[in-house]
Amino acid sequence: MKLFSSVHDVPDVKALVKEALHLKEFPYAFKALGENKTMALVFLNPSLRTRMSTQKAALNLGMNVMVLNMDKEGWALELRDNVIMNGTTVEHIREAAAVMGEYADIIGVRSFPGLKDREEDYSEMIFNKFVQFCGVPVVSLESATRHPLQSLADLITIEELKTKARPKVVLTWAPHIKPLPQAVPNSFAEWMCRGDVDFTIAHPKGYELCADFTQGATITHNQDEALADADFIYVKNWSAYEPYGQILPGNEDWMLTNDRLKITNKAKVMHCLPVRRDLELSSEILDGESSIVVHEAGNRVWAAQAVIKRMLEGL
Amino acid sequence: MKLFSSVHDVPDVKALVKEALHLKEFPYAFKALGENKTMALVFLNPSLRTRMSTQKAALNLGMNVMVLNMDKEGWALELRDNVIMNGTTVEHIREAAAVMGEYADIIGVRSFPGLKDREEDYSEMIFNKFVQFCGVPVVSLESATRHPLQSLADLITIEELKTKARPKVVLTWAPHIKPLPQAVPNSFAEWMCRGDVDFTIAHPKGYELCADFTQGATITHNQDEALADADFIYVKNWSAYEPYGQILPGNEDWMLTNDRLKITNKAKVMHCLPVRRDLELSSEILDGESSIVVHEAGNRVWAAQAVIKRMLEGL
Amino acid sequence: MKLFSSVHDVPDVKALVKEALHLKEFPYAFKALGENKTMALVFLNPSLRTRMSTQKAALNLGMNVMVLNMDKEGWALELRDNVIMNGTTVEHIREAAAVMGEYADIIGVRSFPGLKDREEDYSEMIFNKFVQFCGVPVVSLESATRHPLQSLADLITIEELKTKARPKVVLTWAPHIKPLPQAVPNSFAEWMCRGDVDFTIAHPKGYELCADFTQGATITHNQDEALADADFIYVKNWSAYEPYGQILPGNEDWMLTNDRLKITNKAKVMHCLPVRRDLELSSEILDGESSIVVHEAGNRVWAAQAVIKRMLEGL
Repeated sequence: MKLFSSVHDVPDVKALVKEALHLKEFPYAFKALGENKTMALVFLNPSLRTRMSTQKAALNLGMNVMVLNMDKEGWALELRDNVIMNGTTVEHIREAAAVMGEYADIIGVRSFPGLKDREEDYSEMIFNKFVQFCGVPVVSLESATRHPLQSLADLITIEELKTKARPKVVLTWAPHIKPLPQAVPNSFAEWMCRGDVDFTIAHPKGYELCADFTQGATITHNQDEALADADFIYVKNWSAYEPYGQILPGNEDWMLTNDRLKITNKAKVMHCLPVRRDLELSSEILDGESSIVVHEAGNRVWAAQAVIKRMLEGL
Repeated sequence: MKLFSSVHDVPDVKALVKEALHLKEFPYAFKALGENKTMALVFLNPSLRTRMSTQKAALNLGMNVMVLNMDKEGWALELRDNVIMNGTTVEHIREAAAVMGEYADIIGVRSFPGLKDREEDYSEMIFNKFVQFCGVPVVSLESATRHPLQSLADLITIEELKTKARPKVVLTWAPHIKPLPQAVPNSFAEWMCRGDVDFTIAHPKGYELCADFTQGATITHNQDEALADADFIYVKNWSAYEPYGQILPGNEDWMLTNDRLKITNKAKVMHCLPVRRDLELSSEILDGESSIVVHEAGNRVWAAQAVIKRMLEGL
Repeated sequence: MKLFSSVHDVPDVKALVKEALHLKEFPYAFKALGENKTMALVFLNPSLRTRMSTQKAALNLGMNVMVLNMDKEGWALELRDNVIMNGTTVEHIREAAAVMGEYADIIGVRSFPGLKDREEDYSEMIFNKFVQFCGVPVVSLESATRHPLQSLADLITIEELKTKARPKVVLTWAPHIKPLPQAVPNSFAEWMCRGDVDFTIAHPKGYELCADFTQGATITHNQDEALADADFIYVKNWSAYEPYGQILPGNEDWMLTNDRLKITNKAKVMHCLPVRRDLELSSEILDGESSIVVHEAGNRVWAAQAVIKRMLEGL
């Protein structure tokens, strides 16, 4: 595997999930694989789970890890071509990525969208330029429009905890006070559409996701209809795709509570975290039996480890 | 050992000091103990000695180490329960700590006091919530009211360098221009009260420490009286406990000089560092034969290593 | 080797280059040498290449590495003696360096010049105080007036890619919008003057480097004259040595283009990076066959590894 940026980079989703669960059982079985290999984790935005879980995954595989907080420790990168660099950018991504590729065998990159210009964000310019210029395999640590390691961890979690062959999985929009990217819901949708699940998306009118990610999903504006008989509920806020990056007024009543869960099939509640309590998701759910958010976060290690293992095998 | 937050977490202080000195002699003897184990060091405030010495201690024991500067690289944590998180905090400590516990076998946490609200600081809310929610053993890297790794290193240093069975140890207040926490003197006091030393605390009127930490100590406002025949002098500024967090006017003459040392028993001078030269402590002492501050800082490694070793043994 | 701050610390430049190229062929041959040894990399200024390459070099030698971004994670250090520290500096370099020496077997330090006071910058006060007080071997990760790991990597690159016994090497000044240090050109000059090369420096009038670094070089204000028959061209901006730290008006036409390269001997173009495209150096060169800037950056690993290896051997 040379690139892990979306579900389309994975020819055999089931096999990858199975491999991740095997690694969870035997975390150090492939420690020789990464010996003398270096993983660079490049963050243009903050991170907690992704940083720790990916670092741990690489260490489990015997690699050395170098973490670069470019947003804090580095300098501003120029992304555009054909500009005279007489402004505030200090280095072009062409050189920066190529140089990182000299020092690392595999690079992980995190870069959030600006949420101003949809075309620019959905072109994945920053992530794609890293891939183009670094010359080594690249793992997305969340890009402008996708968060594939999160989605793989989500699928692993569902596979691990499901009690029927084909569970009903619901992605439900949740309120927030800040405009958030569509990366997590986009990614979750495209992975679920490839998994052995019945997949429904529920959101208020106006929060339609880009159709490229939701082929095969049932989409509804009726949250209760979606929740009925659900086995897994994935709670997530996102800003509108059209008008891009906006928060639409109202919809505060979309926050999930224990009462709402009654119509589900004792659904387990998921969230990628961080979560704003009692705004996105009620404390009573997060502190109760339904929540599997911490377990889900723990599975980020095995998702990352399965991906990095495949990249190491391909070096 | 599941928790190292104060001297009360240590059933056998002498044995722990002895173990630390043994580790100093054989630093890598237990390198197999930490294999495939991960230590997360979480800093909500800056650090130099604690970060480096604890990282080195964990590496000496064969562990992997992940450093998180939450204050710089992360986001603001919500500490209160029952609040709608529609403000500036991005993640609740309940989730943040629990997730870190998924990735780490042992967690170290640093969190300074606000010095505004004594009750809040002395409740140790932040540190205790980490302990409560992370689900793995926790080492204090200095909390609002204590700095136990420092105090253990101090006791190790005294044990190592003492020339009589029961040396006289003096903690003396020193001037400063900023209000500093009581964590180091609190901690030093409670550890000395458990050690084989004659322990005296000297400070100007108004700088009384909370009595919970000083049971068994001789307390005086007369610095010369305290210094007479002292074998070890621990220099440290702290702000008042009542009125909380305040600096009281005057007392600049409490800074230690070579002249003052004459009445001691060729006392060795200690300080936890960082120290402001010629404000808290004179350059002539720091650059002279009496100072053991750098040696003391070096012993931070063995203090941390003894504690982490016990935690690893209990995993 | 106890100190690596300039070419004068290396008795046998050729042998060191040869050793570096040997390490490039067998990167892990000396992994036992650094077992249980710790390298601390202390940054008072940002870094990308130096941080990653030095970290990788130390890991290749089996060392543990601790990175400290003192400018971001630490606090302000006092450098002057005989001052009462009642201002903004929190710790004196005497204590900070000595304590780091307790935790590290080798220390790397980066500290840029202020470009205000030439005498102060050229006294290398910060770097020299680290050396004086830390008590362990020190590698310069770029100091106020030199960048020796860069220059060693440059010499390695020339040795590796030269097609004649004694190539012509030209250091040519390039335009910039900000005043930059003289560290890279100073260092490059003193290393080239010790290498098996014909060395020419070309710069506009007023950009004369300090003569201490350029003994043996041909110096000209005529760029074309310098470029004629050049085998390697080293492009770099620097601010004036006199008036110190200034940018002189004009000279934008000193930027190198493919057209200018025609009079060279198919010269390879070098730059220490980061480079501002189409201001310091044209995109057409950076994206063309002449540029070896990424390869050059890759060689930073072997330069650092050769130096650290010698220090480890001397411990």
